[in-house]
Amino acid sequence: MSAITVLKTGGEIIEHPQALEAFLDEFSALPGPKVLIHGGGRTATTLAARLGVETTMVDGRRITDQAMLDVVTMVYGGLVNKRLVAALQARGVNALGLTGADLGSILSEKRAVGAIDYGFVGDVRQVDTSLVEVLLEKGVTPVFAPLTHDGKGQLLNTNADTIASSVAEALARHNEVTLAFHFGLEGVLDRDGKLLPSINARTFQALCEDGTINGGMIPKLQNALHTLEKGVSLVKIGKTLITK
Amino acid sequence: MSAITVLKTGGEIIEHPQALEAFLDEFSALPGPKVLIHGGGRTATTLAARLGVETTMVDGRRITDQAMLDVVTMVYGGLVNKRLVAALQARGVNALGLTGADLGSILSEKRAVGAIDYGFVGDVRQVDTSLVEVLLEKGVTPVFAPLTHDGKGQLLNTNADTIASSVAEALARHNEVTLAFHFGLEGVLDRDGKLLPSINARTFQALCEDGTINGGMIPKLQNALHTLEKGVSLVKIGKTLITK
Repeated sequence: MSAITVLKTGGEIIEHPQALEAFLDEFSALPGPKVLIHGGGRTATTLAARLGVETTMVDGRRITDQAMLDVVTMVYGGLVNKRLVAALQARGVNALGLTGADLGSILSEKRAVGAIDYGFVGDVRQVDTSLVEVLLEKGVTPVFAPLTHDGKGQLLNTNADTIASSVAEALARHNEVTLAFHFGLEGVLDRDGKLLPSINARTFQALCEDGTINGGMIPKLQNALHTLEKGVSLVKIGKTLITK
Repeated sequence: MSAITVLKTGGEIIEHPQALEAFLDEFSALPGPKVLIHGGGRTATTLAARLGVETTMVDGRRITDQAMLDVVTMVYGGLVNKRLVAALQARGVNALGLTGADLGSILSEKRAVGAIDYGFVGDVRQVDTSLVEVLLEKGVTPVFAPLTHDGKGQLLNTNADTIASSVAEALARHNEVTLAFHFGLEGVLDRDGKLLPSINARTFQALCEDGTINGGMIPKLQNALHTLEKGVSLVKIGKTLITK
């Protein structure tokens, strides 16, 4: 039973060298066992464009045909992940880059074709953190790229927020887990623009009803509250990594 | 003290779907703890061409400027490595993709600029297999891409044969290691075209002198003999993976 921090950082931080350096310094200074999950963001779109592969997004999700799967496997699993690992190693963090295929850690299922065919996009079905926990105990910091597999040899593009929640929930079975979503905003603001110090299931409902929380923040916070039900101890959302 | 097989497979096998499937079946059937090291080969050259990045080879080594380093990080560390991991998982092998940056396993040094500037090419300086051995004991099969790091945040392109030898030598400190170089030929042939069943330091010298062994095979076999001096128990070279 350890206290573990699971931190998800967005593509917008990874794409800005200065913001990335600052983030890596802060992340490296975080005490205790920790796991990093990164998005990919525009680097994949840029590479796809250079290769003549068209990017189609539906509700913020990337349609992933075979050519796009190759692009995200190269960018998320290769370029972004390995650069982060090398940069963390330089800061004394013993990082290990992973996809859900590595160590058989995250099994997913190709999303069924409905009104929209998302292509090679995977929905998480099963997370096995037994070996991740062995490595955390040995001082290793796992760094997850947003890719999973179906157990039959197929890699699948998977939302990084979902990977963060799923890994946090799995670790919470035997550990005290704080899940942090790190991005460019301070957190959730009230109607006067003041930062809300905390939100729970009851206040969330009220804040949605009066319109304080709206748009894309609703599913993000619903996801956060769901992980609490699944055993995660605390969810942090915002720009500042180390809070009291 | 375990008996471990370290196997290096070449780019030419990875690029041919049928040969790759057959290889993965054979590799999966190998009993006991094992490590796979893969090359990258022409996939990197193909992607580079599509991106307008020119490939320059000197004595079979790739000149690696920043653009080419990004290409090999994407292809070796992403596309090739993660496809192999997913394909092995589908065969019941609990694979884990690694570069030398992951787990701080292989530290290298950027090659000094002499008559030729190889760019971001690394020569192996230090191998730490302590966590790799922990994982091997837990039934994990590490899969190394031919990339290392300098410990200061820089990824470096590194010859896959060298990675295989270095990892085999490091594991040989506490284990009985067989190092296998797997490629499209049967092995070393004598002057009558018959397969030589075995070579040692003494016979190697004689075979070089009478011209039986020549060209690119000389450094390959010198490298193999060197690993034996460094504690590796046996080196196998050839097309057949499982020999008596």
